[in-house]
Amino acid sequence: MSNPASNQRIDGRRLWDSLMAMAEIGATEKGGVRRLALGPVDKAGRDRFRGWCQEAGLTVRTDAMGNMFARREGRDPSRPPVLFGSHLDSQPSGGKFDGALGVIAGLEVMRTLNETGIQTEAPVELVNWTDEEGSRFGKAMMGSGVWAGVFDQAATEALLDTEGMSLGQALDSTGYRGTEPASRFPADSYFELHIEQGPILERENKQIGIVTGGQAQVWYDAVVNGQDSHAGTTPPSLRKDALVGAARIIDLVDRTMRARGEDGRGTVGQLFVLPNSRNVVPGEVRFSVEFRHPDQAELGRIAAQFPRDAGFVARDSEVTLELTERVRLPAQPFDPACVALVREAAARLGYTAREIVSGAGHDAIFVAQHVPSAMIFTPCRDGLSHNEAEHIEPNQAEAGCQVLLQVVLARANRVV
Amino acid sequence: MSNPASNQRIDGRRLWDSLMAMAEIGATEKGGVRRLALGPVDKAGRDRFRGWCQEAGLTVRTDAMGNMFARREGRDPSRPPVLFGSHLDSQPSGGKFDGALGVIAGLEVMRTLNETGIQTEAPVELVNWTDEEGSRFGKAMMGSGVWAGVFDQAATEALLDTEGMSLGQALDSTGYRGTEPASRFPADSYFELHIEQGPILERENKQIGIVTGGQAQVWYDAVVNGQDSHAGTTPPSLRKDALVGAARIIDLVDRTMRARGEDGRGTVGQLFVLPNSRNVVPGEVRFSVEFRHPDQAELGRIAAQFPRDAGFVARDSEVTLELTERVRLPAQPFDPACVALVREAAARLGYTAREIVSGAGHDAIFVAQHVPSAMIFTPCRDGLSHNEAEHIEPNQAEAGCQVLLQVVLARANRVV
Repeated sequence: MSNPASNQRIDGRRLWDSLMAMAEIGATEKGGVRRLALGPVDKAGRDRFRGWCQEAGLTVRTDAMGNMFARREGRDPSRPPVLFGSHLDSQPSGGKFDGALGVIAGLEVMRTLNETGIQTEAPVELVNWTDEEGSRFGKAMMGSGVWAGVFDQAATEALLDTEGMSLGQALDSTGYRGTEPASRFPADSYFELHIEQGPILERENKQIGIVTGGQAQVWYDAVVNGQDSHAGTTPPSLRKDALVGAARIIDLVDRTMRARGEDGRGTVGQLFVLPNSRNVVPGEVRFSVEFRHPDQAELGRIAAQFPRDAGFVARDSEVTLELTERVRLPAQPFDPACVALVREAAARLGYTAREIVSGAGHDAIFVAQHVPSAMIFTPCRDGLSHNEAEHIEPNQAEAGCQVLLQVVLARANRVV
Repeated sequence: MSNPASNQRIDGRRLWDSLMAMAEIGATEKGGVRRLALGPVDKAGRDRFRGWCQEAGLTVRTDAMGNMFARREGRDPSRPPVLFGSHLDSQPSGGKFDGALGVIAGLEVMRTLNETGIQTEAPVELVNWTDEEGSRFGKAMMGSGVWAGVFDQAATEALLDTEGMSLGQALDSTGYRGTEPASRFPADSYFELHIEQGPILERENKQIGIVTGGQAQVWYDAVVNGQDSHAGTTPPSLRKDALVGAARIIDLVDRTMRARGEDGRGTVGQLFVLPNSRNVVPGEVRFSVEFRHPDQAELGRIAAQFPRDAGFVARDSEVTLELTERVRLPAQPFDPACVALVREAAARLGYTAREIVSGAGHDAIFVAQHVPSAMIFTPCRDGLSHNEAEHIEPNQAEAGCQVLLQVVLARANRVV
């Protein structure tokens, strides 16, 4: 049989209406959403999502981390399910689409299957992962991370928010802690539709990003120490200006990134100066450094070279540098067969598309450690995300959802 | 008559005891003082100072800015007085000697004159200037500035502290607002003994700094704007990283300073990053820039060149720069005759000495606009000031005070 489902179309209007209905929950004045993980607003979002799933005849179960799985049975219930979804929690000043698009598009896939009376061979399960954003408890991708065995559940539950409430307590307060263990189970595949959160697709006028994997990452905490002294009385030869040293390291981060072409990322996003007084030569500067690269080996070279280079820069500036590696994540390539399905679906549907590496972290990157996975990106306006002004057009959401439907069908109906 | 007073000696022990007694007022746990201008602790310091002056037979009067003048009559009361002093207010985490040394040493000069029964030809007046530090109301050298006509009194009184109290209200609350106008009156000369607040004298093992003048200064507020974006998804070619742009301008400030040898100063002391999140390419950075140079013309060249150079750096970094000049102070040379008296006194007393330019602002720099002035510096440990660990040795305080006595006597007894 050749592409039996290629004429199936999702309903773009229904998808958009549901996206807007979800965006009412935690809506902010500036048009964004604030749906912090495991708070009352997240619970309200989950309630609405569960209601929609039940209306669609799906069986909803929840695991011990609050991850929600909404199942539509396959002709062969013993086959491992095709998973797809994303997350409903948001940044504190987040947008309507980051996470929600993948979940609501998954729901639209289910509704389309219902409407067209299709029974897939394998079961299909729509997932809402718990606490992807990490804004409240300080670590991201908690639900998928525990599920994939990246994080320990007890340690994760012990994380505290700024009010002193633990993640475990917050989870209990939502009523969404299930009895099923929060650990990976056999699955055929996992697909996640998400906004790009970057400017590449928009700039190149592409409708679909065929995501080939996640970048390797290394994060550092840097502390530069010099000597604070009076800005008016300390001559150049006696200065140990921590901010001048830090500035040269910031420039080094940028040069290190640019020396590797368009694929690398290198960022100092957070920086604090002490004592931060205009008449005082700064004695201490604390800042973050992160590098990302799709090529694992290239990131390894950066991680081997940068601390040494930064040390030389510090020494030349007569300051000291303490560089502590905080996080090292390997590159996570997606499954070639799953990626190929995304590429083929986009082509068949006539969408402009390009391959892209995910710059951001996503649940799919943890899931991909155990389950053949791929992601589908849609462009977002000005590449803006984690921002209340985050925006996509209805036809962009629709295109992503059409591709999602095709890959889910292809995988759930494949001959095994 | 040859050096009639050169055998007069101040009492180093009495000077030190009074310095320590003043340091009790506002003493901090770490050995510093916190005597914020026009607060209750400053009032307590003023009360103790006034008591000591009265015990020494001095006539204390206060002007409308709270500047205190303690007069010892001369043989010819019609002669303009010789002024000397400094300030008793401190930084929030200040040291025992910044300001207090000049005032308490002036008191010791008065006590020595009393003890030795000397009546000077001209009257002599010991001054405690109001709010030199500027920590509370945001602008420094308020009392001497209004006195010298640099600042408008009404505008100065309207300055608010962080609690919303105006300087005028604070002044009234101390009871030290006098009826005499806060404006300059004819004076023979002004001398101020102060710690160097820098490392030069200590490094060269000199006991006395013969201060030849104050530096020219220019202060800017800088705002660099780029575009905040996701650190993982924004490729190098699309970044407008405000912190990278700011870092290169910080490096430019340092290079601009060093290109002019040991005399220049160039500092970025205060800096804020927005949004200051480790996964976000910074969209905006706000920071201070200041340059100082003893040579007025050299500072003029810096002020002409730096904004242009910084603009090029910003453009090359694909960010925008707004640079606002906030303060421009001319170089203030001290009176050659007064400076010569300091040099001669130090030599006569056998102290090692060198000429030095004041890197910090001082009341003497405003007073010198109208009154022949000079300053005497003593070394301070590690050049440290504006810090609770600020320290000088008793023999260093004594040396400075001996020089002060000599120059006051020379000036008050000179043949006119």
